[in-house]
Amino acid sequence: MKQLLQTKQVQVLESSNGRPYFLVNEHEGVALLARNGDDLLLIEQFREPIGETVIQLPGGGVANGESLEEAVRREFLEETGYKCGSVQYLGKLQPASWRTNEVTHVFYTDEVCGYGSQQLEAHEQIRVVKMSVHDCMQKIKHHEIHDSELCFAILQALLNGLL
Amino acid sequence: MKQLLQTKQVQVLESSNGRPYFLVNEHEGVALLARNGDDLLLIEQFREPIGETVIQLPGGGVANGESLEEAVRREFLEETGYKCGSVQYLGKLQPASWRTNEVTHVFYTDEVCGYGSQQLEAHEQIRVVKMSVHDCMQKIKHHEIHDSELCFAILQALLNGLL
Repeated sequence: MKQLLQTKQVQVLESSNGRPYFLVNEHEGVALLARNGDDLLLIEQFREPIGETVIQLPGGGVANGESLEEAVRREFLEETGYKCGSVQYLGKLQPASWRTNEVTHVFYTDEVCGYGSQQLEAHEQIRVVKMSVHDCMQKIKHHEIHDSELCFAILQALLNGLL
Repeated sequence: MKQLLQTKQVQVLESSNGRPYFLVNEHEGVALLARNGDDLLLIEQFREPIGETVIQLPGGGVANGESLEEAVRREFLEETGYKCGSVQYLGKLQPASWRTNEVTHVFYTDEVCGYGSQQLEAHEQIRVVKMSVHDCMQKIKHHEIHDSELCFAILQALLNGLL
């Protein structure tokens, strides 16, 4: 194991098979599958690594001292302008365990109430997307949605009888 | 966009929000959801970035000049020792679009035939895991399986009426 790079946020190491990977310091994230009646509240944002706009769940990193549930409520409010009532834990996703130590804790709510406006950070350009559950599943099936966290959340919600 | 590191395999760049990310040269991978009767043919291997053993789909990178289908057949044979008949394309996953440009093309087959033994590379330690479709879905639901590619494949197979 060889260290290739170290910054405040990450180390880049080389694994025994020669593949470089990230150890991210703040490696826990949260994301919320929020349902409001027949609609899911999703977001769309540009992702530089793939050079494309992605439809995905609202979410983000867990701040220092925050619980997972506090983090998911804060990120949901910041990114969409909505508040949520009770949330249910759907599970932990390892999105790319060959490349990064990051994990995403995914929650579900069907209690959404309108609040105000998004509270985005300077670098964030996020569009809120309301999409019916049916349309979302069709878009996954027909290869128009590719995001790992959103697909994981939909699968967990199906297995738990929530959709 | 600032370059932090360049190796033969990857560039590490810094995005406009200050987050480091990978641009991997050979960024397309393949994975196979292989069903043999009631059983899925999965693999288990240690992933250094997360320091854990992961249950996941057989698969790997696409070699130069190879089609996606050729790659998935080769990886399946190498990692499990099994050959497969016809395969069906289930879609393209973006596992961690905030961190890497990698994508995984996921296929399905229910035509599996025994062949010989695994043909692993020196660094690979892979155990073949036969697991019933039912057990796999229960393990996802009960937070024992966390892998993005496997969960994506199960969701696509459900949406396409294959499981």
